[in-house]
Amino acid sequence: MKLQIFYELIIILISTKVLGLLLRKLKIPEVVGMLLAGLLIGPSVLGLVEENEVLNIFAELGVVMIMFAAGTETDIKSIKSSGKASAVITAFGVIVPFGLGYVVASLFNGGFAVDRETMISNMFYGVMLTATSVTITVATLKELGQLQTRVGTSILSAAVLDDIIGIVILTVFIGLKNPDVSVLKIVIRIILFFVVSYIVGTLARKIYHWLEDRNPGTRRNIIFAFVNCLVFSFAAEKFFGLADITGAFFAGIAFADLKESKHLEHRVDIASYLLFSPVFFASIGIGTQLTGFNMNLLWFGLSFVAVGLLSKFLGAGIGAKLCHFDNDESVRVGLGMMCRAEVILITAQRGVNLGFMNKSFMPFVILLVIVSSFITPILLKLSYRKKKAA
Amino acid sequence: MKLQIFYELIIILISTKVLGLLLRKLKIPEVVGMLLAGLLIGPSVLGLVEENEVLNIFAELGVVMIMFAAGTETDIKSIKSSGKASAVITAFGVIVPFGLGYVVASLFNGGFAVDRETMISNMFYGVMLTATSVTITVATLKELGQLQTRVGTSILSAAVLDDIIGIVILTVFIGLKNPDVSVLKIVIRIILFFVVSYIVGTLARKIYHWLEDRNPGTRRNIIFAFVNCLVFSFAAEKFFGLADITGAFFAGIAFADLKESKHLEHRVDIASYLLFSPVFFASIGIGTQLTGFNMNLLWFGLSFVAVGLLSKFLGAGIGAKLCHFDNDESVRVGLGMMCRAEVILITAQRGVNLGFMNKSFMPFVILLVIVSSFITPILLKLSYRKKKAA
Repeated sequence: MKLQIFYELIIILISTKVLGLLLRKLKIPEVVGMLLAGLLIGPSVLGLVEENEVLNIFAELGVVMIMFAAGTETDIKSIKSSGKASAVITAFGVIVPFGLGYVVASLFNGGFAVDRETMISNMFYGVMLTATSVTITVATLKELGQLQTRVGTSILSAAVLDDIIGIVILTVFIGLKNPDVSVLKIVIRIILFFVVSYIVGTLARKIYHWLEDRNPGTRRNIIFAFVNCLVFSFAAEKFFGLADITGAFFAGIAFADLKESKHLEHRVDIASYLLFSPVFFASIGIGTQLTGFNMNLLWFGLSFVAVGLLSKFLGAGIGAKLCHFDNDESVRVGLGMMCRAEVILITAQRGVNLGFMNKSFMPFVILLVIVSSFITPILLKLSYRKKKAA
Repeated sequence: MKLQIFYELIIILISTKVLGLLLRKLKIPEVVGMLLAGLLIGPSVLGLVEENEVLNIFAELGVVMIMFAAGTETDIKSIKSSGKASAVITAFGVIVPFGLGYVVASLFNGGFAVDRETMISNMFYGVMLTATSVTITVATLKELGQLQTRVGTSILSAAVLDDIIGIVILTVFIGLKNPDVSVLKIVIRIILFFVVSYIVGTLARKIYHWLEDRNPGTRRNIIFAFVNCLVFSFAAEKFFGLADITGAFFAGIAFADLKESKHLEHRVDIASYLLFSPVFFASIGIGTQLTGFNMNLLWFGLSFVAVGLLSKFLGAGIGAKLCHFDNDESVRVGLGMMCRAEVILITAQRGVNLGFMNKSFMPFVILLVIVSSFITPILLKLSYRKKKAA
């Protein structure tokens, strides 16, 4: 067993890194390379690595670490300062994709008058589309020297809000899996979890701060923070019936905005990229089936990709317009919010595990990530060039 | 399963860190605290955590990372420069403990005329005693301002040699487990492995250096080095019939003495202390049985501790004396080499796994670590005070 795992880790680490770097050269996010690596080494193609319990645990720790790191990067202050505009952009940037995603899924999966389970499953396609990832947008705006503008700061804080709202919606849907649990019950659980994690998180934050003051940069501080991440993940699922990633994300938020946050995130990040997150992203690929394609699925998938791009552009753009951004600015906000990466993949993987989504749909989710990360920088640059020409 | 592992990791990380820090306040190595934590949370006392496959894999990765880090810290140049003296000190500091350990074990376990298996098992107690750990000695000599003396540098390079010889001896014994394999065969395998790992290691070292030159400090470099560690571990066990830790140690040596070694070791160290090495040391404690004590075992164990201290002091001291160190210096070298920590624990754990040593003997190995780390600094300081008084 031990040698088997060593062997699998070697294959996973080499293939994810090589493909990740290759795709990065083509300006496609490294995570896509890791997914493709998983697809390549998994049962679909070469059959070198199969799913197993130990790898699943590694993958689960990987996603928890990713969400924890995302939490620590959440810049609460920026939301407060940019206030109303980013709230409106986020709201429309979540509602429109959610609605259109649900409509498209329903058109292909039995229409609107269906049983509870199918309806939830159709809605889940909407949930996936609510995610955003602004890494590429931020890089592009930086390149254009436009990050410190109204457009740039609004996108940045809308993306933070989007993450928070996205995880809440996902949490509700994971809760809905159990047919005995009503939406009300889930909302109450979430509120309870928020209250408890706010109290515990504030306390943990104070202890961490105190530890850092006494012994800056020591191992005990990082371990303390990481144990908090595990405790929040464990408690969210075990005691509140929510998702472990919800817990990890809120544990991260508890440690955000500290002067030591960067340092902490860096440390957890090393453990994550050295082992856990490659296993996580590869495991999505390993679990992806390339069989079961038919014309219906193909049209569904391509519509999903198109609607995914359009709905976010429209939603966020309308939100910006409502906040008195001019037309050019609104277009840029819409384009900037369009990109998807880690979060949609994590959401999709949960969807597969919970039975909301079929494994054979995963290639289209990956396609949306690839297409959106390809065209976002191109369109954004065009939108700025137009202005200069005018 | 996932929640179970999260729960176990939480218990392990908290208990190992708290007990580790407490013992450190008492000047006892943190690893002892981790072992005691394992004992406390394991079936022997509280029964919170039990051995399971996932934890075993974590522990195995932990020990591989520890050995890899030990390899990268191996200062080959210092051995070359201090040359003959440290070689003689190491030789006697290995032979005398090995011999006396074997004698003591034989006295308690059936005498000298026994079957092959019992004899190997008795010799294994000698193997354990060959290990040394100079962390505490180095700290003490630094405090006394005596690290840059002939005594200090000899101890440092003798300790490096001791590590290398120790792992070779352990490798031979792990090979001897299989009754069909002769010592000659094992030695040939080891030599083959050395040749292959020298060639592959030199190549890997060059690639790593080239990677660092092109993109200093990037993730791909660390992952490259870590993959090498896994490949060496895997190959040593799978293709050469040796121990995975032997592979990891030699992979580490391949990356030693580079200007980037510190940086590399630091990165791997983070992943190690955040998760893997606490699980490893705790798992030794979890697997330790506190039952099966009797007077024979007690006397055997206490003799083992006493001989462990005395034999290293005598062996290394005689070695120093033979190299024309004066009496005071020889005493200090002997005292400085006496301390045990990680390596004896790793060796003992392998011994239990292979059936060379009974689980119920583990408490005495731990006792030797505790006693030696307690008295080494005290005696070393006394040996220097005497000089000043004279």
